[in-house]
Amino acid sequence: MDEFSFIDYLKKKIRSAGRVCVGIGDDAAVLDVGKDKRLVVSTDVIVENVDFRIKKGARHRFREKVPGTFLSPGKIGRKALAVNLSDIAAMGATPTAFVISIGKPAYITTSWLKRFYKGLLTLAKQYDIPCIGGDFSRSKEFFASITILGEVSPNHLIKRSGAKSGDWIGVTSPLGGSLLRHHYDFMPRIREGLFLAGHATPSAMIDVSDGLVQDLSHILKASKVGATLDLDKIPISRDAKKMNFGDKAKALAGALSDGEDFELLFTVSPQKKRILEKIWKKRFPKAPLTWIGKIEGRKSVIRWRCHGKNVSAPKLSQKGFSHF
Amino acid sequence: MDEFSFIDYLKKKIRSAGRVCVGIGDDAAVLDVGKDKRLVVSTDVIVENVDFRIKKGARHRFREKVPGTFLSPGKIGRKALAVNLSDIAAMGATPTAFVISIGKPAYITTSWLKRFYKGLLTLAKQYDIPCIGGDFSRSKEFFASITILGEVSPNHLIKRSGAKSGDWIGVTSPLGGSLLRHHYDFMPRIREGLFLAGHATPSAMIDVSDGLVQDLSHILKASKVGATLDLDKIPISRDAKKMNFGDKAKALAGALSDGEDFELLFTVSPQKKRILEKIWKKRFPKAPLTWIGKIEGRKSVIRWRCHGKNVSAPKLSQKGFSHF
Repeated sequence: MDEFSFIDYLKKKIRSAGRVCVGIGDDAAVLDVGKDKRLVVSTDVIVENVDFRIKKGARHRFREKVPGTFLSPGKIGRKALAVNLSDIAAMGATPTAFVISIGKPAYITTSWLKRFYKGLLTLAKQYDIPCIGGDFSRSKEFFASITILGEVSPNHLIKRSGAKSGDWIGVTSPLGGSLLRHHYDFMPRIREGLFLAGHATPSAMIDVSDGLVQDLSHILKASKVGATLDLDKIPISRDAKKMNFGDKAKALAGALSDGEDFELLFTVSPQKKRILEKIWKKRFPKAPLTWIGKIEGRKSVIRWRCHGKNVSAPKLSQKGFSHF
Repeated sequence: MDEFSFIDYLKKKIRSAGRVCVGIGDDAAVLDVGKDKRLVVSTDVIVENVDFRIKKGARHRFREKVPGTFLSPGKIGRKALAVNLSDIAAMGATPTAFVISIGKPAYITTSWLKRFYKGLLTLAKQYDIPCIGGDFSRSKEFFASITILGEVSPNHLIKRSGAKSGDWIGVTSPLGGSLLRHHYDFMPRIREGLFLAGHATPSAMIDVSDGLVQDLSHILKASKVGATLDLDKIPISRDAKKMNFGDKAKALAGALSDGEDFELLFTVSPQKKRILEKIWKKRFPKAPLTWIGKIEGRKSVIRWRCHGKNVSAPKLSQKGFSHF
């Protein structure tokens, strides 16, 4: 049983209670806490040797296969919060506060931990969200589990499950190659998420963490729809090209499946698409909006097109990421 | 720098924002989310080899030094949630929902994980709180970080910092020896916490997780007061006696410092004490309330008395627990 099958198993086990507007399986949960307020809650854990590596002196040091996996404590702290902010962005919500649990191995010193918190709190300040609590435990490897809270008005709440046939699929910036740098220094798309929620109320939205194809599949499954993607429209990041030494097919594969892009992937009706095309560029000149395909066809199936012709499914750099 | 000095360091770094009623350093954080509502948030992580051990077949099995440290998956799941409920109890709050992050090593099977969730969700059902989200990651050892949400009215909110000279110190049940059994099968004192908040508004409250002496010290420090404790009044659990083969001094030491009792330790004015004495026993016949001393004397200092005479500080079984 893989990670996602297990989550499906849990969904069946856990019956939703009255005040839960969105439960397990979206980017964040949503609770009814008052007439015109919804509480958004999301949790994300990052673990040493999975999401980053820590240098532990000469004895433990080994050749870096890929640059960017060994992170400084400040960058790890920043990333721990940033991935959570990205989930709040995907709900079109405003972050309000967070708590953090930390597993601290013996080789992590308090000075290391201070630098971790410096990176974390610097980002927290930029988004004006206080750290309101936490817990420490000893552990064998370093991990940090953050739970972030946010707020959204009931009218602007966006789930994964609302995509409709005929909707356009948009993404907020080029994808792929995040391992070079982007996975630790990306700016969570909070403002973009709020703007989308306020001006275009996407029918579905998710942040690209597992890779475009896998995350789009989450939307398709939740919404019970299919999609057609235009291979020639997929925006490929500079780092994806750089990492693959200019090999176009590999760079495209990276954009489709590298993951950790933390861009917003969303679906909107044709009218909303026209509205966004008029106002987006002026508001977010550095986050070019790209339309990569449409919602249509059989449930959970992605059909591929290139320059208007049907093509077979492209090779991916990895088949998404499973933690099981 | 130990765990608690580091938390003090963080407290200075993290300035409290406007909506934060209680920030870092209490059992839970409290946020203002509306006129007559406060959101309570607490996070607690449990880690393999710190809070429990997992049997991994003959090769990894080693002699159990203390019974009770090897837990079945169901008991681990139950404990992960129970320790969080205990924090909500200590705020006099009602739990509403929770999220969970899990670190899953390769030797944890999905069938193990299902049993973990069964234990967890059975307890969740008893307290009527839904699991609304989570995250999985690979890891080297199993861990579970839960963030629990709760609600409290602004009038019933109880912090660690309100203890006043002249207040009585109470505890909800006998202490010590929790490692035998209690640390995984205790019932979180939610109802007792709500009852105390509603009928006696304790000036301070905490759950005994690190050990009576250490947790009382947290109240004294936060409230800037001292205390006198009556050694002859400390309620010693049967398991503390059993674990120490009837050695009274050792059993007392256990009651003072074993930790993981998850009883409520609180302070109330003399009038409130009289009220509680009248109504407690009838309401909670199985959780005998004991008065173990008074708030008085110099800040952060505990003076010890036995049968009305001053005595020197007793030996402790351990000096509290630090995760650093």
